[in-house]
Amino acid sequence: MTAYGEGEFAATLDAQWSVGSRLHGGYLLAVLGRAAGESVAGGGHPHVTAVSGTFVEPPEPGPAAARVETLRVGRTVAQVRAALVQEGRLRVEAHITLGLLDEADPWWSAHEPVRLPPEQDCFLMPVDPPGATLSVPLMGVIEERLDPEHLAFAAGAPSGRGVMASWQRLADGSDWDPLSLLVALDPVPPVSFDLGLSGWVPTIQLSAYLRRLPAPGPVRVRLAATDIAGERMDEVAHVWDDKGRLVAQATQLAAVRLPDRR
Amino acid sequence: MTAYGEGEFAATLDAQWSVGSRLHGGYLLAVLGRAAGESVAGGGHPHVTAVSGTFVEPPEPGPAAARVETLRVGRTVAQVRAALVQEGRLRVEAHITLGLLDEADPWWSAHEPVRLPPEQDCFLMPVDPPGATLSVPLMGVIEERLDPEHLAFAAGAPSGRGVMASWQRLADGSDWDPLSLLVALDPVPPVSFDLGLSGWVPTIQLSAYLRRLPAPGPVRVRLAATDIAGERMDEVAHVWDDKGRLVAQATQLAAVRLPDRR
Repeated sequence: MTAYGEGEFAATLDAQWSVGSRLHGGYLLAVLGRAAGESVAGGGHPHVTAVSGTFVEPPEPGPAAARVETLRVGRTVAQVRAALVQEGRLRVEAHITLGLLDEADPWWSAHEPVRLPPEQDCFLMPVDPPGATLSVPLMGVIEERLDPEHLAFAAGAPSGRGVMASWQRLADGSDWDPLSLLVALDPVPPVSFDLGLSGWVPTIQLSAYLRRLPAPGPVRVRLAATDIAGERMDEVAHVWDDKGRLVAQATQLAAVRLPDRR
Repeated sequence: MTAYGEGEFAATLDAQWSVGSRLHGGYLLAVLGRAAGESVAGGGHPHVTAVSGTFVEPPEPGPAAARVETLRVGRTVAQVRAALVQEGRLRVEAHITLGLLDEADPWWSAHEPVRLPPEQDCFLMPVDPPGATLSVPLMGVIEERLDPEHLAFAAGAPSGRGVMASWQRLADGSDWDPLSLLVALDPVPPVSFDLGLSGWVPTIQLSAYLRRLPAPGPVRVRLAATDIAGERMDEVAHVWDDKGRLVAQATQLAAVRLPDRR
């Protein structure tokens, strides 16, 4: 990513971070988050702490521009607006809050990490799922192991509970950081698969909070839906690090195509 | 609210919608949501379905401008950016998604409404709480009855569970709608009171989804925190209508002042 003007950065969108032919939403927010961080560098706000993105039009792999406008830089919080533009058209726009994260335990927490079988007993998601109509290049850069209990959809018998849980690592062996966690927060497959809905569920809006710096090692991710109606589904994601601490959380609203009422 | 130019609306911020001397965040998002709705009127997107606001600087009661820029108008979804500006300075900026809500039951739901004692057995929140250092004008326009179980903070013995639940009505007797529900989603007092933290918790970022049109009558609201660390707290809100259906949900990140570690 190269700065070529005040608040404007050149980015190359990498097709590896795709699901089918669509670039992954969390990856696009990470690109904007990186530009935001460079834009307010030096101010004591090294980490993205909150991102709220609105997805306007899917971009294509290849060159794009990230335009960052600073809204406010305070003592502990910096706020920017960041736009991902390609071929002169707005593709994703986000409000990004920056601050300082650390590895400290929570002062208070109501959350226990999701229970999962040991990592090696979970199902490694393939780039080319057998029988699937599309390939998932993202699974070449994210090593995701799905709880076998949530794999029933693949055998045509979805559980109907509306939950997906998995272990995730970065395939190149690097550790998670606040930007890559934005990818972990929007996992594949969507919860709708566990409800018998197999179609594409494009994100309309996604808000993510980064809560602390993750410990080295894999993260555990739990994705759950609350309510589906009117071709809209929410998905709530939580990510815990290898020490069992909540490191990130997100809520998204996605469009979903519904069959006739059950 | 008067349109005085392409995408620009004059608003008067009403001090009634305040907590202490600060205008309520959900009210400010409702002002922007109303401007957004007028801005894309006529396109079959009558309702706000998602709002994600970033709070830059608290506005004062009195005149302000709402500036709306349309990002995309599609068949079922319209997306805009809306800025609340006062004295030439940006106070709140939001991405707002508009669409069509109805009263239909969910196709699928994992959510049961919060259990509350009958409305008349809950504690009516006063404008001037005895012993409190600030008055809450908002309680003159919202009739909020708090579950007595969550009132222990007022006696100096907070439960430590990090939950607040209440019945809410609009005090003028009108029914809830998608815009007023934005106020219900950010209730007073904050969850931090239930954890022994009595200070002000300014919202940094709030994302709300409106899920369906509410039935007439009161709504039930549940607010819960997940994790508090590094002077940041998340609060997750759910609102159910009188028929027990989820009508709105929100997640916010707020700044919180922490005492020394317990």
